[in-house]
Amino acid sequence: MATYKAPVEDYLFVLHDVLRIQELDRLPGFSDLTPELTRPVLEGVARFCEDVWQPLNRIGDEEGCRLENGAVRTPTGFAEAYRLYCEAGWNKLSAPEEFGGAGLPGLIGIAAGEISVGSNAALSLYSGLTNAALATLHVTGSPWMIEHVMPKLVDGVWTGTMCLTEPHCGTDLRLMKTKAAEQPDGSFKITGTKIFISGGDHDLSDNIIHLVLAKLPNAEGKYTDDLSTVNFFLVSKSHIDPETGRLSHRNGVAVAGVEKKMGLKGNATCVLNFDEAVAYRLGGNQSGGKSSSAAGMSGMFLMMNRARLGTGIAALGVSEAAYQNSADYARERIAGKSEKGSTKPHAIVSYPDVRRMLIKQRSFNEGARALGTWVSLLIDTQRCSPDTEERKRCGELAQLLTPIIKAYFSDGAFNGTNAAVQIYGGHGYIRDNGVEQFVRDSRIYQIYEGANGVQAFDLVTRKLAGEGANGFASLLAEIRNVAAECDRDGLREYSEPLLAARDVLTRAVDWVGAKADHKSPYDVAAASYDIMNIFGAVVIGLMWARMAHVANSKLKLSEGDPEFLNRKLVLARYWMQRELPMTHGLFERATLGADGMMDLADVAL
Amino acid sequence: MATYKAPVEDYLFVLHDVLRIQELDRLPGFSDLTPELTRPVLEGVARFCEDVWQPLNRIGDEEGCRLENGAVRTPTGFAEAYRLYCEAGWNKLSAPEEFGGAGLPGLIGIAAGEISVGSNAALSLYSGLTNAALATLHVTGSPWMIEHVMPKLVDGVWTGTMCLTEPHCGTDLRLMKTKAAEQPDGSFKITGTKIFISGGDHDLSDNIIHLVLAKLPNAEGKYTDDLSTVNFFLVSKSHIDPETGRLSHRNGVAVAGVEKKMGLKGNATCVLNFDEAVAYRLGGNQSGGKSSSAAGMSGMFLMMNRARLGTGIAALGVSEAAYQNSADYARERIAGKSEKGSTKPHAIVSYPDVRRMLIKQRSFNEGARALGTWVSLLIDTQRCSPDTEERKRCGELAQLLTPIIKAYFSDGAFNGTNAAVQIYGGHGYIRDNGVEQFVRDSRIYQIYEGANGVQAFDLVTRKLAGEGANGFASLLAEIRNVAAECDRDGLREYSEPLLAARDVLTRAVDWVGAKADHKSPYDVAAASYDIMNIFGAVVIGLMWARMAHVANSKLKLSEGDPEFLNRKLVLARYWMQRELPMTHGLFERATLGADGMMDLADVAL
Repeated sequence: MATYKAPVEDYLFVLHDVLRIQELDRLPGFSDLTPELTRPVLEGVARFCEDVWQPLNRIGDEEGCRLENGAVRTPTGFAEAYRLYCEAGWNKLSAPEEFGGAGLPGLIGIAAGEISVGSNAALSLYSGLTNAALATLHVTGSPWMIEHVMPKLVDGVWTGTMCLTEPHCGTDLRLMKTKAAEQPDGSFKITGTKIFISGGDHDLSDNIIHLVLAKLPNAEGKYTDDLSTVNFFLVSKSHIDPETGRLSHRNGVAVAGVEKKMGLKGNATCVLNFDEAVAYRLGGNQSGGKSSSAAGMSGMFLMMNRARLGTGIAALGVSEAAYQNSADYARERIAGKSEKGSTKPHAIVSYPDVRRMLIKQRSFNEGARALGTWVSLLIDTQRCSPDTEERKRCGELAQLLTPIIKAYFSDGAFNGTNAAVQIYGGHGYIRDNGVEQFVRDSRIYQIYEGANGVQAFDLVTRKLAGEGANGFASLLAEIRNVAAECDRDGLREYSEPLLAARDVLTRAVDWVGAKADHKSPYDVAAASYDIMNIFGAVVIGLMWARMAHVANSKLKLSEGDPEFLNRKLVLARYWMQRELPMTHGLFERATLGADGMMDLADVAL
Repeated sequence: MATYKAPVEDYLFVLHDVLRIQELDRLPGFSDLTPELTRPVLEGVARFCEDVWQPLNRIGDEEGCRLENGAVRTPTGFAEAYRLYCEAGWNKLSAPEEFGGAGLPGLIGIAAGEISVGSNAALSLYSGLTNAALATLHVTGSPWMIEHVMPKLVDGVWTGTMCLTEPHCGTDLRLMKTKAAEQPDGSFKITGTKIFISGGDHDLSDNIIHLVLAKLPNAEGKYTDDLSTVNFFLVSKSHIDPETGRLSHRNGVAVAGVEKKMGLKGNATCVLNFDEAVAYRLGGNQSGGKSSSAAGMSGMFLMMNRARLGTGIAALGVSEAAYQNSADYARERIAGKSEKGSTKPHAIVSYPDVRRMLIKQRSFNEGARALGTWVSLLIDTQRCSPDTEERKRCGELAQLLTPIIKAYFSDGAFNGTNAAVQIYGGHGYIRDNGVEQFVRDSRIYQIYEGANGVQAFDLVTRKLAGEGANGFASLLAEIRNVAAECDRDGLREYSEPLLAARDVLTRAVDWVGAKADHKSPYDVAAASYDIMNIFGAVVIGLMWARMAHVANSKLKLSEGDPEFLNRKLVLARYWMQRELPMTHGLFERATLGADGMMDLADVAL
């Protein structure tokens, strides 16, 4: 049976030693964020998830969700465990106090989120999506939604979904067929089929708030493939009286099926049929003015961005759980003698190739955790800094880094879960030990919220153009600063590889920008995945240099746990020596352009 | 639903245009191997597998195997489909004629093997293991086994297994606990538990021949951790009368359980309890002399080597099936407009990043197919060439290449099946489309017959030392010849990248050999996986250079299908431009040695 221990000490190190959030007085709410506050919060959610959620992880995988008389039943224990989680307040750490939340900055909620996922990825997704819906509603909801829906979602007695994908289309919203028709009272009726709706129906909550993309007819009353006709709506599972917030009869949303999936089986992935379902357009301003299509869609993109960050963090959560189990197993599994010529059998952790897999997993996980937390802080700063310039700068950096977190984290996590299975050998392939579940569960994160190829394309096109150029300049400045800090303390073993990889990245970005040099219009797209991987290695390298610098300083001052801090230096060195230099090969390949890659006739592929 | 089309044309190209087996008159049986013989054979097995086996692939995954009253039931249709396969003779293409086989060279059986796996990996494993047992028995069996057991295994009415792994040990045979006690009549009684026994019990055949590793007591009657006490035995599910070959009552072998696995669910993976089971030691010479421990163990290693080659080829089979489905899907799935500025929606095959995944999958598969077939030919030549020198040279090369085929093919195949899921997006993650099954099925090949890390270690230590040095020299000569052929025809775009990567490989091998330069005894082991990957890229590059040279020659002569041949050139160029150069980064990392990788305390990992 798999086990899980939440990485609380690691989070405290990132929050307080690396990011020093307790000193960010200028950000509302941050001056309270001392270790005396964050430690009990993180230890609390950790203990709850380890004790209550983790034991249900395997059960969720074995039982899955099933459709009975039109309603979805989640696995044994899920509903009760969800209720206890909400009652303890772990779902609402970062929700606004005015709606019943704890009002902590977003990065605390995201740290708790990783812990929830690490203990039970399928169960955590119900509240993860609710939080994404919450954030969107907060900025795009009409006053009655803010008044009546927000508190229910914060409390967790209602949950949320995102209804985007349709049977024939995912990424390309223009092809969408779900239709919205305006009613005389200003509401809408929505008709169409949505697929792959996570938490689309279940028995955890009294009501479900679906946030739905649908098309409005054009001036001639026709539905076209024009993106500007796509709008964003709220559809409640049961009718809500906008005056009182009271629930009444069921709305026109029916579950047509629950998908059988590779993994994440405890989360119900539904096909939903909307049949003249009553809907309300999102994008109204909160003083009750008429809603606009553009405002609603920007809310949808806000939700998607949150979900992309959340997907990366979730992948990390599963990767961490997989790592822990494989490290435990490697220490316990006896096989063969060690290389030193001893005749006594040793555990497989003494084999260099097993060590290679473990150190890679751990260096990736801890680097990713620091990066994810930093980006969460950037988003918090963008939201609430009193300094306009800082808000802008942090927003641009977060925009740039979001697709990297989504794609690079989910790829790295999938590789990490597979390394865990490999370390277990045949014992990893059988279901009893619970590690192959991590592979199946984590596989989805490479697909969710825009497949990783789409993230890479978004990164090298939109995220590097226009405002993106500012974000990249800020990233380079950050690297320069961190490298200079390392240099000042004589830590060139971290700064030099980082700066070398930074140069590779800069050349790659210059190549992307030099449009005239491209032989083919496909060049940049063909290079996008390799360039995303260069970005990922460099930004995790940046975090490792920061962490190494902090660990080194603390060691010199004899502060903190020396074993913990020395381990950071070892893991940082691993990333600098063995991952960053691989960017050279990626660069060479990326800048070949599309030549030779588009040559096969479509029919012959 | 997934589909499958056997790669018959590709095999005919490799066999007759690249390897020109029809001209190898000096090898017994090869002069008959004209396309007029091989085409109907491969088309026959292809049609059978596509029509009869492939439709059961999904059913096998859904139903799995179950234990009922001490006996294993395979999924619906498996027993009948296996019977039809044997009746048609597809299981015995390469079995010796004297035992009822078709007597074709081994490489034909291996080609048919890939096709069987591609159609139904779980079902094909029952006969795949039988063939491995057959080969071992042929060289290590006593006369009565040759007379009575071999024909049954060839016919397929009996099947075979390999019983090596025990609950507490896999790779390290010294830790084994299963005991053998010699009986007055020269037979043995075996007691112990074996796990992960593929096809350990089932309802496909009348009897099962288990080939079992067990320990003999030393002179003091004690069982020790000494490797020299490990012996190899035949244990039959039902007793066989050595005089008549007739089956009687059940032997002391009981199925204690069927594992629930990540994939390959249609193949029964059993826990077998041996309780004083009657056993016969293998390793007797065929004139009936006393069997020897060493001869039996060398038979075990022969079986393992066959199984390692078979595992690599099996991984390729699943990878090919996954590729085909993702290419079909990419051509059909409409999403977005193409890059060219068109407003019409295009299929996703027009996206460069989708194209990147597809071309990588295909270039890997076809390169691997050529390499696997060449190594099969080397093994056939080693077995039956009249030229001692050639036998030796081919044997050494095959020895060197076997761990590469096992590890590099299974890694590449797993990546390929995952690329297929990625191309399907969310539709790949749900079970209905059958592509996620390829991921789950193929995952085991990285573990079977020695996990890939063990293969890499074996490669850089044993396979490069002693006789291995000859094998490596032969490989370099082969590369030189193929590059020279390309150069003569002006095909420097293939020869130059191949020679550049060859230089990287040579430097890596020199580094392995320069023991005095190593700072740590762990250096070579820590580098082994990267070096294995360099080897893999280079030897597949070698095959692509050979294929490109042949395709170019045929195109100049206006022979063959120009679309087929031009596609080979495109795929060859892909490998040369985008895979071979990645060896530089692997070399740099490998030659860092173990420095920094072994630094974490075991307890802190």
